[in-house]
Amino acid sequence: MDKGTALIIGAGADTGGAIARAFAAQGYHACLTRRPRNLDQLESLAETIRAAGGAATPFGIDARDEEAMAALVAKIEDKIGPIEVCVFNIGANVRFGIVETTPRVFRKVWEMACFGGFLTAHNVLPRMAERGHGTMIFTGATASIRGGSGFSAFASAKAGLRNLAQSAAREFGPKGVHVAHTIIDGMIDSNFIRDNVPNVDALRAEDRILNPDHIAQSYVHLHHQPRDAWTFELDLRPYGENWS
Amino acid sequence: MDKGTALIIGAGADTGGAIARAFAAQGYHACLTRRPRNLDQLESLAETIRAAGGAATPFGIDARDEEAMAALVAKIEDKIGPIEVCVFNIGANVRFGIVETTPRVFRKVWEMACFGGFLTAHNVLPRMAERGHGTMIFTGATASIRGGSGFSAFASAKAGLRNLAQSAAREFGPKGVHVAHTIIDGMIDSNFIRDNVPNVDALRAEDRILNPDHIAQSYVHLHHQPRDAWTFELDLRPYGENWS
Amino acid sequence: MDKGTALIIGAGADTGGAIARAFAAQGYHACLTRRPRNLDQLESLAETIRAAGGAATPFGIDARDEEAMAALVAKIEDKIGPIEVCVFNIGANVRFGIVETTPRVFRKVWEMACFGGFLTAHNVLPRMAERGHGTMIFTGATASIRGGSGFSAFASAKAGLRNLAQSAAREFGPKGVHVAHTIIDGMIDSNFIRDNVPNVDALRAEDRILNPDHIAQSYVHLHHQPRDAWTFELDLRPYGENWS
Amino acid sequence: MDKGTALIIGAGADTGGAIARAFAAQGYHACLTRRPRNLDQLESLAETIRAAGGAATPFGIDARDEEAMAALVAKIEDKIGPIEVCVFNIGANVRFGIVETTPRVFRKVWEMACFGGFLTAHNVLPRMAERGHGTMIFTGATASIRGGSGFSAFASAKAGLRNLAQSAAREFGPKGVHVAHTIIDGMIDSNFIRDNVPNVDALRAEDRILNPDHIAQSYVHLHHQPRDAWTFELDLRPYGENWS
Repeated sequence: MDKGTALIIGAGADTGGAIARAFAAQGYHACLTRRPRNLDQLESLAETIRAAGGAATPFGIDARDEEAMAALVAKIEDKIGPIEVCVFNIGANVRFGIVETTPRVFRKVWEMACFGGFLTAHNVLPRMAERGHGTMIFTGATASIRGGSGFSAFASAKAGLRNLAQSAAREFGPKGVHVAHTIIDGMIDSNFIRDNVPNVDALRAEDRILNPDHIAQSYVHLHHQPRDAWTFELDLRPYGENWS
Repeated sequence: MDKGTALIIGAGADTGGAIARAFAAQGYHACLTRRPRNLDQLESLAETIRAAGGAATPFGIDARDEEAMAALVAKIEDKIGPIEVCVFNIGANVRFGIVETTPRVFRKVWEMACFGGFLTAHNVLPRMAERGHGTMIFTGATASIRGGSGFSAFASAKAGLRNLAQSAAREFGPKGVHVAHTIIDGMIDSNFIRDNVPNVDALRAEDRILNPDHIAQSYVHLHHQPRDAWTFELDLRPYGENWS
Repeated sequence: MDKGTALIIGAGADTGGAIARAFAAQGYHACLTRRPRNLDQLESLAETIRAAGGAATPFGIDARDEEAMAALVAKIEDKIGPIEVCVFNIGANVRFGIVETTPRVFRKVWEMACFGGFLTAHNVLPRMAERGHGTMIFTGATASIRGGSGFSAFASAKAGLRNLAQSAAREFGPKGVHVAHTIIDGMIDSNFIRDNVPNVDALRAEDRILNPDHIAQSYVHLHHQPRDAWTFELDLRPYGENWS
Repeated sequence: MDKGTALIIGAGADTGGAIARAFAAQGYHACLTRRPRNLDQLESLAETIRAAGGAATPFGIDARDEEAMAALVAKIEDKIGPIEVCVFNIGANVRFGIVETTPRVFRKVWEMACFGGFLTAHNVLPRMAERGHGTMIFTGATASIRGGSGFSAFASAKAGLRNLAQSAAREFGPKGVHVAHTIIDGMIDSNFIRDNVPNVDALRAEDRILNPDHIAQSYVHLHHQPRDAWTFELDLRPYGENWS
């Protein structure tokens, strides 16, 4: 446990949860966040981690809340341990045309998918830089590198997050902090997909949807790269046919 | 004058002003916006356009103000004429490290450079789509495609604007509306540069800084492209040595 | 006629021909090349240009032939006039899987679509650099920026041409020579399309295929950009739905 | 040893050698190639692998030789074992201006850095596809995605290799074959660097040059990714300041 902590902002049931379990299995104390209203599910994820012999603490927090985020990072570093790994994993995938997207929605998607990432970086990176090491990974999507019809809010926010990550990598890399960005391109085996895609079992049986645990393996690999051979960006997708 | 209007959001003294003059010279009624506090300078730009035989109306408006933007577009279309060309030209270039960038600044830069662009697109594009034609051009920068140390807020907002533009192009292209994005890569011959770069006269004499009127020529070219051969993106830079 | 010459390598019936006509209409003596076996058609293009009041000289030449290309450029500069514009426009679009692509085909596609571009640049650019001005444009395609199943030879060669163009732009830009690259993304209204696409008339009537003359307009625009505001790359596509 | 073979085309003293050692340590029989004139050094690499308990067979072969490459792959599959991993690792970094680059050099650089990759893919991928699994990794560089002054031949060939890899990934992914491409961006701790960079020891002590063994770790990771979460491309660079 004296390895320090792994802070997962957006530790949902699927990708975020798998990443949290993976870093907990590596010996980090997993600090988990989701919005306050999902605190029950977060507690259940923490239980799973503890049952597997790991350590985990859940925090119900809105990642768009400037003061709450500053307080969270300070509290973790003071009471639990230095943040050695931080993953920003909040998506906000909505699909509306530009006319149907209200300004309120456009702003909210950005606050969740991009501004929350800035608040995380703003609070975590200087502490890592002071120690001269640490890893921060931002989860991206195909929309991060390509706008699409119906995805103006999501693609705009994700592109904003990616350029934030790239700026952070160039600023904090020389200080010993590894900043990386992933492009997840494909359906993830998630609650949402299981509820909405009829043939999900067939897809899973043929490895045609991303297994969150396999995504997590590449996050762990990124964290373990020696500092002379760091990756800023990698994509992850199933082997199947449709490649955007 | 019956050609309709050209709406320039961010008709500053340099690039925006040159674009406004160029479209006014093409016979469009130039509708100019800047923040209310710069209304005097905007009126002076309108005078220049009128003195050259063109038509221009200045509007002091905050492009981040949702209701004001909706009202502006409605007013122009009702009282002056259909918006045939719209250019979103607001920059917000600030340079701070991620720690020095306060959440307030990060948000403000996004509101100016990206959210304002969304509000413009949200209000203008459906009117163009209804008519089956029109051109909307977003002004980008190198930071649009590349984050850099010290540019997290600016590069994040500009990337967000670019993916918004790309989403808009894919959504509104099939409706006959030409959406384009420019990457301006280099120093522009502007008030800021004239005040801050000591050897600006030598640079200008050797064509090493972008002349706003020459930028405007490419905007006019984009607008005149027939719809079977549209450009989404082009870059503009001086011939000189440093190419980022 | 004393404007100098415009050398079009690959002055086929469609895009290359339209580009040649456009520069001839600007007052340049159009020097046209195609493979020796297409010399008849090239002569007919030259006739069309002359009939419109322009000047044109056809050359049957294999652009992959190192000595022939050196001799061609020398001859034009000596006998006709300085090359002010040069367009490399040879495609070689073939579609085969990697297994079906023989090494001979892979090499031949590269020789036509990339090596020929190098020979052109190698012979033309130093002459332009000596004069301190000139424009060289390379015609690219979607495959230039994106490999696709079945396009290994074509996409590989086109990517090679694009990075050659980018290297040339960075090397010769500071010497006053404008090097540009276009990405043509869509069907061109060409002999091939007219023979192979059943509904080509309907597509043309709705502007859903690229008109070669409209492509040429953007080439002319590139050539006329002042050197403080040069474009390296622009894309061209119809307004319609499928955007790769 | 019954894991099959790992074929490393371009198993030089540095990166290629490290990759060979890494896959041999994973239990693959390392099949190593270099040009015939370097066969002695290749034998010495094979000895090192054997001394560490691995299996290795050296082949002096010119990767540009179509028949030799077909025979090599056939021989390995027949006599040693199925190729489970294949790495194409031949570089050809030369720096000349476009005028100084002779057509012969331009062609040779392409033959080594791109055509050799095609011959490898052309012979290896269908065998992997028949078995429904296998990994092929192409080594790229910054020049793969960006042309630069003085790098026309190298950047052109590397871009050609990258689009070949991307085409192969899209064609063979659905057949169960993992095709990946790496972007190595920085100095590698190699014989060349050790001979030519005066402060190489200081750079190494500060982890400012890429350690070939650390590059190899990411290649092994790519090979072990489950097929529902494959990476096509990742970059590798030291943490230090200069990021192109």
